[in-house]
Amino acid sequence: MSKNVDKLWGGRFRETTHRLMEEFSESVSYDRALYEQDIRGSMAHARMLAAQGVLAQEDAEAICRGLEQVRQEIEQGALEWKTELEDVHMNIESRLTEIVGDAGKKLHTGRSRNDQVALDFRLYVADRLESWRKALGALVAALAAQAEAHRETILPGCTHFQPAQPVALAHHLLAYAAMLMRDEERITDCLKRVRVSPLGAAALAGTTYPIDPERTAEELGLPATFANSMDAVSDRDFAVEAVFCASLVMAHLSRFAEEIIIWANPGFGFVKLPDAFATGSSIMPQKKNPDSAELVRGKTGRVYGSLMSLLTVVKGLPMTYNRDLQEDKEPFFDTDRTVCGSLGVMAGLVSELEFLPEPMARALDRGFVNATELADYLVTKGTPFREAHHASGKAVALAESRGCGLESLSLGDFQAIAPAVDKDVYAVLDYANCVARRKAPGGTGLDSVARQLEEVRRWLHGIENSE
Amino acid sequence: MSKNVDKLWGGRFRETTHRLMEEFSESVSYDRALYEQDIRGSMAHARMLAAQGVLAQEDAEAICRGLEQVRQEIEQGALEWKTELEDVHMNIESRLTEIVGDAGKKLHTGRSRNDQVALDFRLYVADRLESWRKALGALVAALAAQAEAHRETILPGCTHFQPAQPVALAHHLLAYAAMLMRDEERITDCLKRVRVSPLGAAALAGTTYPIDPERTAEELGLPATFANSMDAVSDRDFAVEAVFCASLVMAHLSRFAEEIIIWANPGFGFVKLPDAFATGSSIMPQKKNPDSAELVRGKTGRVYGSLMSLLTVVKGLPMTYNRDLQEDKEPFFDTDRTVCGSLGVMAGLVSELEFLPEPMARALDRGFVNATELADYLVTKGTPFREAHHASGKAVALAESRGCGLESLSLGDFQAIAPAVDKDVYAVLDYANCVARRKAPGGTGLDSVARQLEEVRRWLHGIENSE
Amino acid sequence: MSKNVDKLWGGRFRETTHRLMEEFSESVSYDRALYEQDIRGSMAHARMLAAQGVLAQEDAEAICRGLEQVRQEIEQGALEWKTELEDVHMNIESRLTEIVGDAGKKLHTGRSRNDQVALDFRLYVADRLESWRKALGALVAALAAQAEAHRETILPGCTHFQPAQPVALAHHLLAYAAMLMRDEERITDCLKRVRVSPLGAAALAGTTYPIDPERTAEELGLPATFANSMDAVSDRDFAVEAVFCASLVMAHLSRFAEEIIIWANPGFGFVKLPDAFATGSSIMPQKKNPDSAELVRGKTGRVYGSLMSLLTVVKGLPMTYNRDLQEDKEPFFDTDRTVCGSLGVMAGLVSELEFLPEPMARALDRGFVNATELADYLVTKGTPFREAHHASGKAVALAESRGCGLESLSLGDFQAIAPAVDKDVYAVLDYANCVARRKAPGGTGLDSVARQLEEVRRWLHGIENSE
Amino acid sequence: MSKNVDKLWGGRFRETTHRLMEEFSESVSYDRALYEQDIRGSMAHARMLAAQGVLAQEDAEAICRGLEQVRQEIEQGALEWKTELEDVHMNIESRLTEIVGDAGKKLHTGRSRNDQVALDFRLYVADRLESWRKALGALVAALAAQAEAHRETILPGCTHFQPAQPVALAHHLLAYAAMLMRDEERITDCLKRVRVSPLGAAALAGTTYPIDPERTAEELGLPATFANSMDAVSDRDFAVEAVFCASLVMAHLSRFAEEIIIWANPGFGFVKLPDAFATGSSIMPQKKNPDSAELVRGKTGRVYGSLMSLLTVVKGLPMTYNRDLQEDKEPFFDTDRTVCGSLGVMAGLVSELEFLPEPMARALDRGFVNATELADYLVTKGTPFREAHHASGKAVALAESRGCGLESLSLGDFQAIAPAVDKDVYAVLDYANCVARRKAPGGTGLDSVARQLEEVRRWLHGIENSE
Repeated sequence: MSKNVDKLWGGRFRETTHRLMEEFSESVSYDRALYEQDIRGSMAHARMLAAQGVLAQEDAEAICRGLEQVRQEIEQGALEWKTELEDVHMNIESRLTEIVGDAGKKLHTGRSRNDQVALDFRLYVADRLESWRKALGALVAALAAQAEAHRETILPGCTHFQPAQPVALAHHLLAYAAMLMRDEERITDCLKRVRVSPLGAAALAGTTYPIDPERTAEELGLPATFANSMDAVSDRDFAVEAVFCASLVMAHLSRFAEEIIIWANPGFGFVKLPDAFATGSSIMPQKKNPDSAELVRGKTGRVYGSLMSLLTVVKGLPMTYNRDLQEDKEPFFDTDRTVCGSLGVMAGLVSELEFLPEPMARALDRGFVNATELADYLVTKGTPFREAHHASGKAVALAESRGCGLESLSLGDFQAIAPAVDKDVYAVLDYANCVARRKAPGGTGLDSVARQLEEVRRWLHGIENSE
Repeated sequence: MSKNVDKLWGGRFRETTHRLMEEFSESVSYDRALYEQDIRGSMAHARMLAAQGVLAQEDAEAICRGLEQVRQEIEQGALEWKTELEDVHMNIESRLTEIVGDAGKKLHTGRSRNDQVALDFRLYVADRLESWRKALGALVAALAAQAEAHRETILPGCTHFQPAQPVALAHHLLAYAAMLMRDEERITDCLKRVRVSPLGAAALAGTTYPIDPERTAEELGLPATFANSMDAVSDRDFAVEAVFCASLVMAHLSRFAEEIIIWANPGFGFVKLPDAFATGSSIMPQKKNPDSAELVRGKTGRVYGSLMSLLTVVKGLPMTYNRDLQEDKEPFFDTDRTVCGSLGVMAGLVSELEFLPEPMARALDRGFVNATELADYLVTKGTPFREAHHASGKAVALAESRGCGLESLSLGDFQAIAPAVDKDVYAVLDYANCVARRKAPGGTGLDSVARQLEEVRRWLHGIENSE
Repeated sequence: MSKNVDKLWGGRFRETTHRLMEEFSESVSYDRALYEQDIRGSMAHARMLAAQGVLAQEDAEAICRGLEQVRQEIEQGALEWKTELEDVHMNIESRLTEIVGDAGKKLHTGRSRNDQVALDFRLYVADRLESWRKALGALVAALAAQAEAHRETILPGCTHFQPAQPVALAHHLLAYAAMLMRDEERITDCLKRVRVSPLGAAALAGTTYPIDPERTAEELGLPATFANSMDAVSDRDFAVEAVFCASLVMAHLSRFAEEIIIWANPGFGFVKLPDAFATGSSIMPQKKNPDSAELVRGKTGRVYGSLMSLLTVVKGLPMTYNRDLQEDKEPFFDTDRTVCGSLGVMAGLVSELEFLPEPMARALDRGFVNATELADYLVTKGTPFREAHHASGKAVALAESRGCGLESLSLGDFQAIAPAVDKDVYAVLDYANCVARRKAPGGTGLDSVARQLEEVRRWLHGIENSE
Repeated sequence: MSKNVDKLWGGRFRETTHRLMEEFSESVSYDRALYEQDIRGSMAHARMLAAQGVLAQEDAEAICRGLEQVRQEIEQGALEWKTELEDVHMNIESRLTEIVGDAGKKLHTGRSRNDQVALDFRLYVADRLESWRKALGALVAALAAQAEAHRETILPGCTHFQPAQPVALAHHLLAYAAMLMRDEERITDCLKRVRVSPLGAAALAGTTYPIDPERTAEELGLPATFANSMDAVSDRDFAVEAVFCASLVMAHLSRFAEEIIIWANPGFGFVKLPDAFATGSSIMPQKKNPDSAELVRGKTGRVYGSLMSLLTVVKGLPMTYNRDLQEDKEPFFDTDRTVCGSLGVMAGLVSELEFLPEPMARALDRGFVNATELADYLVTKGTPFREAHHASGKAVALAESRGCGLESLSLGDFQAIAPAVDKDVYAVLDYANCVARRKAPGGTGLDSVARQLEEVRRWLHGIENSE
C-alpha cells in the first residue's frame, strides 16, 4: 500500500490508496510493453522543447542520454517496475529523474500524461500494424507457392457446401489471397488514422508553451498532427479500427481453417496434415488432429470479443479523457498476439500442407459438377435452357443411381434422355476442359489464374519493400 | 405453398417447399429495397453482352426497355411482389419475362444470382455511404455554426468528468466535428472496397462467355472489378466494414448525446432543449426530457449489435456462397436507418439547442479550473513545480471552504499560502485569459479555434461538392 | 407533424415536435404487438383500483368493457394506429377514452407509463418464452423419434472433426436433445425473473394511492411483485436474459445445422435432404442445397447481435427510466421470430431428414474408429498401454496403405505387428460390439441410449402438460 | 521444440511439433489455475475405480498420496511447469508418474482428457461462482449500511436524467441492492448447470469399464451427472452462462459507477470521494478523480467482450470436442478477475463514500420535483387532472423565472394561477411529505424502505450462511 501523499498528485489527499484500488487500477503490468515508444516520444518532445527555446539545450541532451540509459536498463531487465508508480510512463520518468536529476522533471513541460499515453499507444499500434502487413504477406506468399504448384489440380468448387462446378485448386487458394490482400489494404488505410501525433494536446486544452507539434510529429515519422486537443486526448478510434481490421483477418482465417479441418476428414481426404502442425491422441492411435486450424478458428472469438469490448468502453463517454480509456490496451495487445500467432501458424501450415489431387478427383465424380456444362451443351445444340436444365437433372439422377459420374454414362444413355447429345459431349464433360473454358478475367481458367498470380507477386514485392 | 416443381430449379424435386421454410427463407419482404440497383445492374449487363456479341442488340434493347417499365411499375406501386418468387431478383426477372418474353430469359447469360446479388448490394451500400457522408456534413455544419457563435463562451473542460481547465465552447463542439470528419474519411476509404464490381464471377467459377467485366463496372461507375470469382461471390467484407464505420459514428454520437443529457439536467443547466426535439411528461408538469439524445445514445446498441451479427455470420463459413450470407442485408438496412436518423436528429437538435453561457460561467468557479494556472504562475515566480502544485492545492481548499472561486481570494489570502503571489495573479486566473493563452495549434485559444473553423469550412465545401 | 401542445404532456411546450423527431421516436409501429398484454394489464389494474376503493366499481366495469371493445377492434383491424400518439399505450388509452369517456382517464390513477410498459413487456416476454419451451419440445420430439428409429445405426463419432470412436446415431442425436433440454431448463429459470409484476412502481417512486400490487400480480398470473420501484421501472434484465437464453439455443442449432450441411455433402452423404426443406439451383441441375440449415446457422448472428445490442443499451445508464430503454423491444421481437422460426424449421427438417446407414458404415472403415479397441484388446492380453497404442498405430498405417479397415487385416498381418493378437480380435473390432460395450451410464451403449430416450419422453410429457 | 515422438500420442508422427505451433497451442501458462480441481477430480476418480474393482486399492492409495504430494509441490512453487507437456493435466500426470510409477499411468483408465478437462473447469467455475455470490453479498451489505444511515436523506429521483420526484437516498441505493440480489439468484440458477459431473464420458462415447459416475459426482459434491457423453465433452454452456451472469453484474455496476461519477462532479456534489478510492492529477491541483468508478464502468467492456468471444467460439462447431474449446478458459478467468475486482472495489468505495444531504436538498429545489404533488393536490380540490397539470406547469415556470423552488411561491402567487390552492399546499409540497406519502409496497416511503432493508438483511444472512 503506497501513500497517496507520496504520489505526484498527492497534495489534497490525506489517506493512502486502498490496496484493492492499487491492484485494480495499476497498468504497469501490461503497459510496460510501450516502453520503447514512450522513450522515443519523450526524446522527440525534449528536442522540440529545446529547439523552441523552452528547454535548455543541455537539459534536453541530459534527458535524451538518461532516456537512452533507461532503455538499456529495461532491455537488460535491470529496471525494477513498481506497481505503486502505476504505469510505464511514471516508472520511466521516475528512473529518469534519478539518473539526470531536475532536468528530468522538466520533460513534463507542455505535455501531460494524457497526450503522452495517446502518443505512445499510437506509435505502438503503428508498429504492430506494420508487422501485421508483413505477416499477411508471408501467408499470401505461402498460398501463392501452393497455388503455383496446383494450377492444374482440380477440385469441386462448392456453393451451399454442395459441389457446384470444378475449379482449379490454385483459384480456390487465391480466393484467400484476395481476402488477405484486401485486409492489408484496409490496415494501410487505418494506419493513416493511427499515425497522427497527439503531442501538444496536453491535459485536454492545449498548452501555453510555444510548442511545435509538427516538429515532434516529423521526428517521430508521423505524417499528421492533431486538429483538436480535446479530441486528441480522448480519441481511441485508431485502436478500435485496428481491432476491427484484425476481426476481418480472423474471419478470413476462420473460413480457411474450417475448410482445412473438413478437408482433413477422411470423408474428403483432400489434405494430409503436416506433423509439425497437428497433434495426436493419447488414447486413439489412429488420430491426427488439425489442432492448429481449430485453434485459429476458435481464436476468432477473442478478437471479435476485443472489438466488442473496445466499442463498449467508448459508448456514452463524456469528454475528454476518462479512466475507462485505460481499458484500451489489453484488448489490442491480445488481438496483436492472436493475429500474429494465427497468421504465422497458418503460413507454416499452408506451406507444409500436402494437397492430394486424387481424392479431389474422386470428389468431382461424386458431385456431378459438370452437370451445368451438360445443360449448356444442350443449349448450344438448340435446346431451350429450361429443358436442357431438366434433361441434365435426369442424367444426374441416372448416374447417381449407377454410382458413377456423368462422363461414365454411355452415349445411348444420354440420347435416351436428350436426343441432341452427340459424342462431343465427353470433351465438354471433361473437368479440365470445364475449368479451362472459364477464361474470362477473374475466373478459374488457367490464364486468369496466371494473371492473378502475377498480381499477387507484384503485391508481395510491394509489401516486402515497404518500410 | 408453392410447388418446387414450378421453381426455376425444380427439376430434381418432387415435393413442394414447406410453408414454414418458404416464410423462413424468403427475402423479398426486405431485399426489394435493392430494386433500383438490380435494374441498373441488369441494364449494364445486357449492354455489355450486346457489345461483346453475346446478345443480339435488339434483345438488349428490349431488356432495357422492359426493365425501365418494371422500374416504373415498382415506383408506382403497381408491381405485385410475390413471396414464392423468393427475392427481388426473381420478382423483377419474372416480370421482365412477362413483358419482353424470351429475351428476358437471356439476361441470365454469363451471370448468376450469386454475382448479381453481390453487385446489387454493393451498389446499394455505395449509395447509402454517400448519404452518410452528406449527413455527417450536415451535422458538422450545425456544430460549426454553433461553434462560430460561441467562440468566446467558456465552460469547464473535464477529464474524469471533473472540471479540469477552462475551454471555449467552440473548441468543445469542434472536438465532435473532428470525430465526425474522421468518420467521413473512414467511410470514404471503405467506399474503395465497396465499389468493386463482382459481375462476371457468375455462380462461383467465372463464366465461359466472353464477357467484359471492366465494361460493366465502368457503366455502373465502379472503378474496380473483382480479382477472383470465388472470393467475389462470397465476400461481404464491404458490408461488415460499412457497419463498423457506422458503429464508430454512433459511438461518437453517443458521447455527445451523453453530454447533452447531462448538460440539460438543472445541476448543469448548460443547455435549453428545443421543444421540437424534447418531450414532456403526462404526469410530471415540470419535465422536459432530452428524448432525442437518449434515443441516439440507446440506438448505438443496435448498430454494435448489427456489427456483431455480421461478424458472427461470416465466421467459419467454407467457400463460396452459403445461404447464411442472406443474413447480410437486414443488419445493414437497420444500420443505415439508424445512422441516418440519428445524424439527422442530432443535426436538428444541435441547430436548435440553446447554449447558456451563464451557468457555464458559474460552473467554472465551482470547478477551480484555474488552479493549474495558479501553479504555473508560481513556477514563473521561481517556485519549484512540486511546491507550486501544493500551494495551489491549498488555495483551492481555502476557496472551497469559502464557497467561492480562486479569483475571489484576497491577495493576503494568497500570500499567506505562497508569498510569491502578487496582484498580477488576478489576470492569470481570469478564465478568458486562461483560454487565450493556449494558442498553440490544436489548443483552445481563439486563433487555434479560428484555424479549426476554417479547416471545417474547407472540408464542408469538399463534402457538398463531392458527387 | 403533430402539435406538442396537443400532447398529454404539452403544457410547457410552445413548439411542435419536429417531423424527424416524431419518426425517430415513435414506437407504435412495432410495440403494438403488445396490445393484448396492455389490455390485460389495464383490466387487472382497474379491478384492483375498484377493490381498493380508489375507483368506483362502475368506472372499473366501464373501463373493462371499453378495453374489451378496443381489443376486438384491434383484432378485426378496425383500430387506426396513430404515430402521433407515439406508442401502443397511448393509442389504446386514447381510443378507450373515446369509448367510455372520463372513466378512461381514471385508469392512469396510481400508474404511469413507466410501470405500465414494463408490465406489458414482461407479460409478452413470458408468453413468448412459454412458446419457446413448446418449440424446443417439438424439436426434441423429432430428435427422439429419429433416435428411436436409429438405435442401431452406427456412425463415426468425431473429436477434432476426425473419426474417433463408433457411436450410435441415436446417441449422437440425443446429444442435441440434451442441449435443448438444458435450454428449456434455463428458460424456465429465466421465467421466474420475467414473471415479476412492476405495477405500482408508477413513474419511479411508487404511488400515494393505497394500491395493492399483489392483487394485480395475482390476477395476471404473476407469482411475484417488485421490491423497489426505482429498479422496477428501469429493469430490463429479464429481456436481456431471455435473449441470452435464445443465443444458446441458436448456438446449439448452429452446431446441428453445421453437421447437417456437412453430412449432406457427397463426401459424407450421411443424409438425404427432404425436398420440402431444401432448394435447388436455377443454373446447376445437380444441386440440392441445405438452405434451411444454412439459414439457421446464419441467423445465429442476429440473435448474438441482439444480445450485444441490449447489453450495450443498458451499459452506464443512470437511474431510472431513460428513453434508451425503448430500444429493448425490437431486439427481443426479432429474436423471438428467429428462435421460433429456426426451431420450427429444424423440427420439420429433422422429421423429414433421411439418415443413410450405408454411407455411415463406409465412413467407419475410412476412419479406423476401432483402433482404440485394438489397443485396449492388447492391454487385456498383457501388453503395456504405451506399446499397445503404438502397435495399433502401426496396424492403422498398414490398413490405410491397403485402403481397407482394420477388421479386414488378416490374423497374420496383426501378429506380425503384435504377436499377442488372436482371432478373438475380430469380435472386438466389430463396430456394433464397440458401441455395445460402452454400457456405462451416459455412454453410447444400447441400454444407455434406451435410458436416455426414457428420460426424454418423461421430459416431453412434462413440457406438453405444462400450461 | 519437443519431439512429437516423445508425446503420449506420438506413435504415428515422424516430425517434431513446430515451435510456433507449440507456443500457439500450449495452455499450461494459464490452465495451471485448475491444478487444485484437477487433483481433486483425479482422487475421486481413483477412489471410484478402486471401489468398482477396476483399480487395486493400493494403486488408488498410491495415486492419492502422490497427488497430495504434487499439490504440495505446486503450492510451494516447487513444481516446474513444462510447456512441452501442453497443459495442467499432463504436467500433473507426468509428475505423478515420476512419484508413484506405473500406478500413475492407470489413473487414465476409463477417463480421457476430454471429460477430465470438462470436470476440472466445472469445479473451478463452481468455486468461483460461489465467490461471486459472497462478493455480491459484501457490496449489498455496504449498500444496506449506507441506506440504513440515509433513510431520511432525500434527493431528486430522475427519469430521463431529469429531476422527477423526490426519493429517499436509501430507496435509491436499495434499487442497486435489488439488481445485485437478482444477479445472485441468476448465478445460483446457473450453478445447477455448472455442478454436473461429466466424468465417465471419456473421449466422447463413454467407456467400457464398469465405472460409477454418480459415485465420483457425489465425492466431488456435484449433485448431478451427465446424461449424454457426446454432449458432456463438448458442452461449455455453463461457462458461457457464467460469463453472461457476470455481464449483467457489470451492467449494474456500470450504472452505479456512472451515477457516482456524475454525483462527484461539482454540478451535483452529492458525494465526497474517499481518498482511498480516488486519484489526483500531477498537473491540476484541484482534481480528485473517481478513477475507481470509471474503471468499473470501463471494465464492463471486457466482460461483454468475453461473452461475445465465447459465443463466437461455439457457433457452428460440429460434434464433439474440438480444439476451439481450449479458448473457453481465458475469457472466464478474465471475467472472474474483473467481476471480483469490481465488486470488491465498489464495496470499498460505497462503504467510504460520503453522501452529502445538503447539495441533494438544493438540487430538489432546482428540479421542481414536487410539481406532480401540486397537480395531484389540485385534483383533490376538484380540478380536472388536465387542468391541474397545466396549472402546475405554470407555477413551475413562475418559480423558475424567480430562481426559487415551488414551495417559495406565495399563496397569492399560487392563487393567481389556480384559485383552488389553499395554505395546506405547503405541507403537500414539503419534500419529506412527498416521500412519506409513497407508502405502498416497493415505493420510496419510510415503511417501504424499512421492509426492503429487512428483506435485504434476511437475504444477507442466507448468503453468509450458504456454504
